[in-house]
Amino acid sequence: MNSNYQHIKVIGFDADDTLWVNETYFREAELEFAKLLAPYETANTIDQELFKKEIENLPLYGYGIKGFVLSMIEMAIQLSNKTVSNETISRIIDLGKAMLNKPVELLDGVEDTLKALSKTHRLILVTKGDLLDQERKLEKSNLTSYFHHIEVLSDKQDENYSSLLGHLDIKPSEFLMVGNSLKSDILPLVRIGAKAIHVPFHTTWLHEQVTENETKNKAYQTISSLNELIHIFNQPVTN
Amino acid sequence: MNSNYQHIKVIGFDADDTLWVNETYFREAELEFAKLLAPYETANTIDQELFKKEIENLPLYGYGIKGFVLSMIEMAIQLSNKTVSNETISRIIDLGKAMLNKPVELLDGVEDTLKALSKTHRLILVTKGDLLDQERKLEKSNLTSYFHHIEVLSDKQDENYSSLLGHLDIKPSEFLMVGNSLKSDILPLVRIGAKAIHVPFHTTWLHEQVTENETKNKAYQTISSLNELIHIFNQPVTN
Repeated sequence: MNSNYQHIKVIGFDADDTLWVNETYFREAELEFAKLLAPYETANTIDQELFKKEIENLPLYGYGIKGFVLSMIEMAIQLSNKTVSNETISRIIDLGKAMLNKPVELLDGVEDTLKALSKTHRLILVTKGDLLDQERKLEKSNLTSYFHHIEVLSDKQDENYSSLLGHLDIKPSEFLMVGNSLKSDILPLVRIGAKAIHVPFHTTWLHEQVTENETKNKAYQTISSLNELIHIFNQPVTN
Repeated sequence: MNSNYQHIKVIGFDADDTLWVNETYFREAELEFAKLLAPYETANTIDQELFKKEIENLPLYGYGIKGFVLSMIEMAIQLSNKTVSNETISRIIDLGKAMLNKPVELLDGVEDTLKALSKTHRLILVTKGDLLDQERKLEKSNLTSYFHHIEVLSDKQDENYSSLLGHLDIKPSEFLMVGNSLKSDILPLVRIGAKAIHVPFHTTWLHEQVTENETKNKAYQTISSLNELIHIFNQPVTN
């Protein structure tokens, strides 16, 4: 095993866009939304205004599809100057229901990696968003048996991870987080002294983007596919 | 201590309507909703149809205010035969935001009880609904320091409690749950061999109601106020 990880007791995996496709579905829903509101505004403005509305509502609604749908409805009323049809609002509600009902599409190498690592480490799923939605996706994924349990956090900031480690009763140096979001899965862990491995996904929500300056000289490793974890944990300990 | 509880290691407290007022706010929102839709239907029909819609959406949306708001919007469109105004839909969204922003109103004796019991037992908050909303209420309540952590379950059925006990690494006989809902906080615990104490609240959501038959001969204790827990846990052990 890479000596950097020899004290790891628990490995946390982000779910959305680390184990399975998620952001792609939000992008598709935003495109649909822009089509529905095309009579009122340009696609570009709709996109920007929806993002602003989501961020405005985030402290109240938190992450997840239901809050996203409520923000779309609010935005539709606002951008149409209170003239949007009931039909369109129904379509927005249906967009949300379709997102909640999507099948789970696993990313490359996920199952093999979890299978291998679950033999040597306690694995947990660490995600934000709607609890029920995440539980449902985990069940659809058939990955449940590899995880000790699921931890849904209301946000993924330093303090959320610190209280998670308190709850797990382990030291920061004994925890490794694996995920696609530098902002949510990597940098908070580096700051609190835990380990982190970044697996980029091709699309990142604007809200999750970070500047180069924020990642400069930060101690985390980047891999291009989850598969590489198996090699990392199979290397002989070198010190 | 009452000998029935001498092996208890962890006490779980339900939150809504056990520690603080909640159902009352849903009843108030339903009354407002019925007023908004008064042009289309009788209050009674609106109430019944909204309940049906909530139950229909429950597997998809789960518990909590955001799903409740989405069901109200869907119902408004349906009951108005697709003629409800944007104004009314905005009012429904605002109803939801007002619910999320409500101050927390503690029930009698809550703080004294938690303070006393937290000295001798590990207390956890066990609730369903939106994670962010429940965390926010816990923070507003100033009760955070009495709890080891918060467990938000997507539902409160036997299997949810069983996996909670697995996660807490304790036996059913070492867990006591305290709550206002027979369906969610009491009967599942009795069935899996844990302890349960019922503290009724004056209003119970129809979905949480149980028949007399379901509670007959079930081994749980009922108290009229949370205060009584202090006496129960202060009694000398009698066997």
